Amino acid sequence: MRSIPALMLLAASLCFAEAQGDFKPATSNVLDAQYPQVDSSSRVKIRFKAPDAAKVRVNFWSGPKADMEKQADGFWTFTTPPLAPGLHYYTVIVDGAEVSDPASTAYFGGSKWASAVEVPESGVDYYQPKDVPHGQVRQVWYHSSVTGTWRDAFVYLPPYYDTSKSRYPVLYLQHGGGEDETGWIRQGKANFILDNLIASGSAKPMIIVMGNGYATRAGYVVPDLTGKPFGSPEFMKVMQERMGAFEDDVTKALIPYIDKNFRTITDRDHRAMAGLSMGGMQTFQVTFNHLDLFSYIGGFSGAANVFMMGNNKFDTKTAFNGAMADPAAFAKRVHLLWIGVGTNEPERMKAGLESLHNTLDESKVQHTFYESPGTDHEWQTWRRDLKDFAPRLFQTGSHGAETAHGK
Amino acid sequence: MRSIPALMLLAASLCFAEAQGDFKPATSNVLDAQYPQVDSSSRVKIRFKAPDAAKVRVNFWSGPKADMEKQADGFWTFTTPPLAPGLHYYTVIVDGAEVSDPASTAYFGGSKWASAVEVPESGVDYYQPKDVPHGQVRQVWYHSSVTGTWRDAFVYLPPYYDTSKSRYPVLYLQHGGGEDETGWIRQGKANFILDNLIASGSAKPMIIVMGNGYATRAGYVVPDLTGKPFGSPEFMKVMQERMGAFEDDVTKALIPYIDKNFRTITDRDHRAMAGLSMGGMQTFQVTFNHLDLFSYIGGFSGAANVFMMGNNKFDTKTAFNGAMADPAAFAKRVHLLWIGVGTNEPERMKAGLESLHNTLDESKVQHTFYESPGTDHEWQTWRRDLKDFAPRLFQTGSHGAETAHGK
Repeated sequence: MRSIPALMLLAASLCFAEAQGDFKPATSNVLDAQYPQVDSSSRVKIRFKAPDAAKVRVNFWSGPKADMEKQADGFWTFTTPPLAPGLHYYTVIVDGAEVSDPASTAYFGGSKWASAVEVPESGVDYYQPKDVPHGQVRQVWYHSSVTGTWRDAFVYLPPYYDTSKSRYPVLYLQHGGGEDETGWIRQGKANFILDNLIASGSAKPMIIVMGNGYATRAGYVVPDLTGKPFGSPEFMKVMQERMGAFEDDVTKALIPYIDKNFRTITDRDHRAMAGLSMGGMQTFQVTFNHLDLFSYIGGFSGAANVFMMGNNKFDTKTAFNGAMADPAAFAKRVHLLWIGVGTNEPERMKAGLESLHNTLDESKVQHTFYESPGTDHEWQTWRRDLKDFAPRLFQTGSHGAETAHGK
Repeated sequence: MRSIPALMLLAASLCFAEAQGDFKPATSNVLDAQYPQVDSSSRVKIRFKAPDAAKVRVNFWSGPKADMEKQADGFWTFTTPPLAPGLHYYTVIVDGAEVSDPASTAYFGGSKWASAVEVPESGVDYYQPKDVPHGQVRQVWYHSSVTGTWRDAFVYLPPYYDTSKSRYPVLYLQHGGGEDETGWIRQGKANFILDNLIASGSAKPMIIVMGNGYATRAGYVVPDLTGKPFGSPEFMKVMQERMGAFEDDVTKALIPYIDKNFRTITDRDHRAMAGLSMGGMQTFQVTFNHLDLFSYIGGFSGAANVFMMGNNKFDTKTAFNGAMADPAAFAKRVHLLWIGVGTNEPERMKAGLESLHNTLDESKVQHTFYESPGTDHEWQTWRRDLKDFAPRLFQTGSHGAETAHGK
């Protein structure tokens, strides 16, 4: 029994270490910034200067929303409970003004340049730059006859693209609503994920094209949407215009530009599209309207929306002009239908995607359903999605998919 | 005399129009944001939501610093007097918290993601995307044996690089202090400037490499610089380490990587370096220590600093180990020594560069001195610098430079 006090002491000292933490500056901090800090139990300590403010709150978009505590030096601090791994958007609310934390790198999300903090995932390095051959990311500009404007896109080229003479399959990969074409590289680390998957032989070398998900047809003037939130008739009308214009831009401007300017394999068997959230919705619209162009389809936390827009009851017999009506024919035509969701996503999102998955199962429509354990409607879910999705693309003889659960 | 009242009426109505302005959302706004707005007289109207704040100030880094006016709807507004053209960094100070305006695109400057607003320059489109062939901008990753880390750089490839078999000369182009390797593309529009110069035949097709200006040698741990401002011994010690490590990284890691991975012409006659502010200082250090590698040198609002660091009196006979001691030999060896400054830059900066220019003149050291009319220590100066500098590079038989004043 002499061991009990010793154990208690050990436990107490462990608790003390836990309480004190081993906080280190986050990798997402700007040059030389000492805060935010993250400890080994994934707690995040925020520190924000606002000497004359009466009230400062921290607002993790998927995490705590809480009052910060004023310190004597004019800084306000807050330490979160342990967070899920991944990149977490957050803002600070200073006397009612919602702003970014200047100590963190800003990423385009929520239709603004928002701060975010990276919480490492223990034992995981698939999205880190490793000592493997690295691809390049190129920013290209194309003039779109659809929008009548110059638009840009980011293009990931696999290692050895420049020295090889090969042609490559292409994945079109879209960001979410409120984000932009920089998201999959800056937040998602898609280039490092692919570098690592290709180096280990898990994924085929491929080109990834990341376009801007907002488009309006030439001549269309976007009305002032101030005070017109998501879901309002005014907003939805603009969204519909943008969805249609985006579909046209991808199929009539972007794909032709990419096929002309890069060594792509241009048939449908070598073209995939996926997207997250709004990008998943766009993916379903674009691919099912153009099955002559695409044979791999991925919806990351977002495919379900397409079924929620004006068609609450999804029927595999009639959906998409009957593309799935004959499951055997569909499995032959669409090599991969992939749907993913994080287990901690908002209930409505999760329910929508699970219901879609179940409906597809019941109708024997071949597809892959992936659940990311413990992650929310955030980038760690989508990094994992890409890690699961990309290896399933462009594999010889790949004409379908199993149902996979968990990581 | 009957025309006088009519003229007065006309003048009055013009004045009224002027006062009201013809404000339109700035091109630098994030998607759908209606503010900031810019009118045709280059005034900028800022609007910022802070319903519970007691005091909100706007802080144009090169422009007005003023109290904003609270409106009944919880927004604060401020209209600037006419500003110089170009991209203006600004922050908003909410009850003592200096933050970015979420309505504007954020750019990395001042060691944080700061908001900035673009004020068009009337009649000028040399930095706009035009209907000309466009180059690509590539983000590449290289492992630096100097820093022991993976580092990234942006590389501009001229139009037709992919389809041509040519080799190209290279300009290494550096950002300023507090900025990063994204600056020359995002703020500077270097790619569009070169696209346009190349299309008009004014500049030779060239590769531009934009590296990250901060480096530390493997094993070096940057101390906490909180409360150690620029100029403090602690800061300057870190800066010196970074300057040296950067010089090594460029010459021992970046240049070899670029020459290995791109179709460059690798001799000194086809390699240039330039930089703005801190980048100008770095350019002078790197190029003069490695005249075996470089033959074109550009200091944009920054070359003078190198002379201010520990050597207040610049002597062309002894500076840089006597590289300029024989002006004729120097003119033969260095094809271009280019120095630029905006006429509205801070007096000390202007005086330093003018003094350098005069000293070089007196010593008959061939160089180009360019003054950007009416612009400050900001990006419009550096866009103009690049527009003047780039056409002077890599021209056959170019072995020196005239003195040019004005735009």
